[in-house]
Amino acid sequence: MATLLFKPGTVEGEFSKGTSLMEAAQDFDIEIESLCGGKGLCGRCKVIIEEGKEHIKSLTESEEYLLSGEEIEKNYRLSCMAKVGEEGFVQVRVPSESLRKGQIVLTEGREVKFEKNPSVKKYHLKIPRPTLKDTTADYERVKKHLKQRYKVNCHDIDYLVQKELPNLLRRKKGETKENWDVTVTLWDEKEIISVDPGMNENMFGLAVDVGTTTLAGYLMDLRTGETRAVSSSLNPQLEFGEDLMTRISYVIEKEDGRRKMQKKVIDEVNEIIDDLREEAGIDRDEIYETVLVGNTAMHHFFLGIDPAYLPRSPFIPARQASIKSKARELGVNINPSGSVYWLPVNGGWIGADNVAVMLATRIYDSPENSLVIDIGTNGEVAFGNEEKAYATSAAAGPALEGAQIKYGMRAQKGSIEKIKIDPESLEPTYRTIGDEPPVGICGSGIIDATAEMLKSGIIEKNGRFNEDKRKKNNRVRKSEDDLLEYVIAWSNECSIDTDITMTQRDIREIQKAKGAIQAAARVLMQKWGTEKIDQVLLAGAFGNYIDKESAMIIGLYPECDLEKVKSIGNAAGTGAKLSIMSKEKKKEAEKIPELVEFFEIAGTEEFRKNYMETMYLPHKNPELYPWVEKLIFY
Amino acid sequence: MATLLFKPGTVEGEFSKGTSLMEAAQDFDIEIESLCGGKGLCGRCKVIIEEGKEHIKSLTESEEYLLSGEEIEKNYRLSCMAKVGEEGFVQVRVPSESLRKGQIVLTEGREVKFEKNPSVKKYHLKIPRPTLKDTTADYERVKKHLKQRYKVNCHDIDYLVQKELPNLLRRKKGETKENWDVTVTLWDEKEIISVDPGMNENMFGLAVDVGTTTLAGYLMDLRTGETRAVSSSLNPQLEFGEDLMTRISYVIEKEDGRRKMQKKVIDEVNEIIDDLREEAGIDRDEIYETVLVGNTAMHHFFLGIDPAYLPRSPFIPARQASIKSKARELGVNINPSGSVYWLPVNGGWIGADNVAVMLATRIYDSPENSLVIDIGTNGEVAFGNEEKAYATSAAAGPALEGAQIKYGMRAQKGSIEKIKIDPESLEPTYRTIGDEPPVGICGSGIIDATAEMLKSGIIEKNGRFNEDKRKKNNRVRKSEDDLLEYVIAWSNECSIDTDITMTQRDIREIQKAKGAIQAAARVLMQKWGTEKIDQVLLAGAFGNYIDKESAMIIGLYPECDLEKVKSIGNAAGTGAKLSIMSKEKKKEAEKIPELVEFFEIAGTEEFRKNYMETMYLPHKNPELYPWVEKLIFY
Ligand code: FES
Ligand code: FES
Repeated sequence: MATLLFKPGTVEGEFSKGTSLMEAAQDFDIEIESLCGGKGLCGRCKVIIEEGKEHIKSLTESEEYLLSGEEIEKNYRLSCMAKVGEEGFVQVRVPSESLRKGQIVLTEGREVKFEKNPSVKKYHLKIPRPTLKDTTADYERVKKHLKQRYKVNCHDIDYLVQKELPNLLRRKKGETKENWDVTVTLWDEKEIISVDPGMNENMFGLAVDVGTTTLAGYLMDLRTGETRAVSSSLNPQLEFGEDLMTRISYVIEKEDGRRKMQKKVIDEVNEIIDDLREEAGIDRDEIYETVLVGNTAMHHFFLGIDPAYLPRSPFIPARQASIKSKARELGVNINPSGSVYWLPVNGGWIGADNVAVMLATRIYDSPENSLVIDIGTNGEVAFGNEEKAYATSAAAGPALEGAQIKYGMRAQKGSIEKIKIDPESLEPTYRTIGDEPPVGICGSGIIDATAEMLKSGIIEKNGRFNEDKRKKNNRVRKSEDDLLEYVIAWSNECSIDTDITMTQRDIREIQKAKGAIQAAARVLMQKWGTEKIDQVLLAGAFGNYIDKESAMIIGLYPECDLEKVKSIGNAAGTGAKLSIMSKEKKKEAEKIPELVEFFEIAGTEEFRKNYMETMYLPHKNPELYPWVEKLIFY
Repeated sequence: MATLLFKPGTVEGEFSKGTSLMEAAQDFDIEIESLCGGKGLCGRCKVIIEEGKEHIKSLTESEEYLLSGEEIEKNYRLSCMAKVGEEGFVQVRVPSESLRKGQIVLTEGREVKFEKNPSVKKYHLKIPRPTLKDTTADYERVKKHLKQRYKVNCHDIDYLVQKELPNLLRRKKGETKENWDVTVTLWDEKEIISVDPGMNENMFGLAVDVGTTTLAGYLMDLRTGETRAVSSSLNPQLEFGEDLMTRISYVIEKEDGRRKMQKKVIDEVNEIIDDLREEAGIDRDEIYETVLVGNTAMHHFFLGIDPAYLPRSPFIPARQASIKSKARELGVNINPSGSVYWLPVNGGWIGADNVAVMLATRIYDSPENSLVIDIGTNGEVAFGNEEKAYATSAAAGPALEGAQIKYGMRAQKGSIEKIKIDPESLEPTYRTIGDEPPVGICGSGIIDATAEMLKSGIIEKNGRFNEDKRKKNNRVRKSEDDLLEYVIAWSNECSIDTDITMTQRDIREIQKAKGAIQAAARVLMQKWGTEKIDQVLLAGAFGNYIDKESAMIIGLYPECDLEKVKSIGNAAGTGAKLSIMSKEKKKEAEKIPELVEFFEIAGTEEFRKNYMETMYLPHKNPELYPWVEKLIFY
């Protein structure tokens, strides 16, 4: 039986004779690298004995073979081979190269590696009880032993913890006559935010992407980096308006509007927390941190910051830097001494969500020219490389997600998600989600429909329906408002008792939305001074479903090799997860507003000029889309 | 007309041609030293022009005479002579030797000098409005201009201020098309705690001495160091018990007892704040800080910290270091973004009040051997000098203040405050407060009575009544409980219809109380290793009224030259005031628990032994009180 203390970190425990250091480490969920499965063959599982090597059994043959003389001199051991010997205290350091790396996998195989170094850390302490000879006060006693044992200089304690500290230290669990036995939780190695009896290593964090339309919450295990549960829901602020301008007006004009708007979203985050906790079976007090991302309006709404001046030129946010509050101050239902942390705002409307996307894609650290398009209710576009990068808001509106489209709907059972139109007969074929009879068209279907209508000549480059096609197929017809439309599904095929069509107005909405995004991309590329694109990254859940070819045909982004277009899923959520798992990522995020310069395009001449041309399908100038032009059947 | 910016500090304003720099400084309540009354004769009013000297009129004859060549080279001017000239920006530094020093006067002429450097400071800023070319966010914009204009690196903003910042910056007052015009209030040059329109220099702080029996509040003008209003009241926690042990039991045993105890005292502090605000006619939001002192139990009660382990050996406080909370977190009715600051606890029961007394007396910085006695409900005793110093709690109980004494009362109209007894006839003469017929005896009277009874032989050194004296005067008589007593006033002289007496039990209580204090003093002196006392400082309101000779006769403190005994008034309150006026004093306070070592005497053998002897009047060993022994008439 010996006491093993593992570093870096926080954990110690008793282990009986013969236990290997690797097994002991696993007990604490410290995953040591291994290729041979702990057979002493690969040499990957090195650890360093910093103290008490006499309590570990002597070197095995395989260690003598696999470790260099210098390593042996420095007390390296293979953790799968080195076993607990005699009673005593042993301090073991697991060097970072021996730690199995955590990773977050983005869809389509883009991986983001990260090391686990969350702001929240736990330290197990045995603290000698005070005596008349040693009358150090409770808080100072904990501080002293944190420093002695773990070389951590904490210099603050949350007020709620301070109030209960005498009792927290003296709770009966694992304590002895001589010692208290507690686990201390620190924020950023500075502030004590929890003191628990005995050894308690559970620690969780919450990453939340606060979208204009959707909230997505991820419960992260801060020890392992694992996503323990996921939950999403509609943003209940939709009640106050679908778009941000309407919501801001509500906040400004309605009595108590700001507080109501804030409460709405925080209540919903609390619902998500309840869901996640139930799914993972954990305690509210074990969640010590929430990291949030969202656009600037969401940021202001959530934090209760006056958004009145955000929609007026020059569109100034109240704050750019990240902000940390106590959970109790905002009423977020995690540990009340835990923190609520918003990543920094990028600039103007471009918020913490873009910072998170940048953190996940790191385009500012790559030699490749990357174009990132986050198609949400508010389209965000970024372009650049390690030399320089720009981001802007395209104000595309929600048309590409199905809103403002006559038969548009969210991706649900029965929504048409894929469409082909025969260019000769103009007859469509389509597929619905769940193969149910159609009830509407979702975003990917809308983009497909537009692309196919263009290819088959039902609509022209300027978006207008081609009168001539009425003769060819009665699916092209006049609608009540005397404008043309195209019938994708007759009512008898549908679950609704009307034909599902794409109308002239629908096409106009698509043109505006995609035109804004392409124009934004072109303005940034012009500002950068290049026409070369090495990759197009489509962020947002929507990016996963979209047909990349159709999207290029309608001109959502500049023409390029289709291979270069990648969907990266909810990159904003990924950025939030990265930040919750790593202090370094939080620091990196702080620099992003400088690395990725916010450039306000709204109202600029450059944008206006490009937009006039990008409203065309795919662009007014055919030379910019040579490959697409060949696909179009006139 | 020129803009003058005065440093160190925060103020700027426009002044017309011909205004002297001294006059301009006075407009901001910057008091520049002067002996000649601004006539250019004394040379005390030097300032340095750091920028824009071309906008100040040229050197006068008297300046050429009074300033050295080197000073002229370094742009020194006499502020009474140097006058505003042409339009432009001028930065003026007032060196600390030219600033008139603030001072707090203690009773009996002990003065404590201090420089004004409060944690709260105000900065007047003109901030260029954002444009599409300069889209810096609001908070970052304020930060940037604080740094540019005043070289202050603020790095935080109170959450409430952040929420309202967009609107606070854009309020109409003194703003122009180009600039916002605001005054920014910072805590510790780090955190923005208020943003006000235009120039607003008002700033106040509150110093509160939270006594077991009495609360005393002082409203301080943070610009001038002036005490603007004073208010005191009984501690409403008296309802839960007169002594601390009873109150702690209440907290532990009663449901919600801790919260109730806390609410009681905070509500009372809020009452005091209302009083002070009304008296001074100021706004609650102009009070930015509260500094509190009190013993450790009061500290725990006020902050809502669990006091359960304080009364049990080894008497460990939950925290020693100073603690700062937001006013809103505690519900203290000053500016909600302001702070509530408790000075550090000294150790054990010896709290922030002792730290404050030490800060006011600075015995740890003097070569003299000082004995400090703070006679409150809980007697605190400190002894030492710059080499080393100790403090302890004497647990004297409230007898010396009149509690537990049969006819004891607080000092009020009609209380006997002064007594003489003729050693021959044993007839007393007395004086009451307000010369009203007597209703009882207050603390100073009780000490007088005991001393006089000892001198005249009515009681003996061991405190027992002398049976023989019954024959001499019928004022010495048997009481109902068959013990002896001495009649100070016959009922027909009194406003109450009974004789006012000092009983055997009363004398016992006095013996215990004064015995505890003298014993504590002797233990500390023995620990120090000296018998030499250079001064005895009596702190607490009580110290002002006490007859120093009587107190020495009964042996409240060791015998010494009476000249060396000084009353210093409410030194705890003075220490709180010093801390609110100066960051340096706050820092100094933090070191006091090290400089003045807390030494727990309760339960020690040293204390027990001394106490056995100090219970005698004045002490068992006559050699320790040679002068007093001569006064005693056997
Ligand atoms: S795991 Fe392969 S050598 Fe230890
Ligand atoms: S005040 Fe005397 S020289 Fe200026």
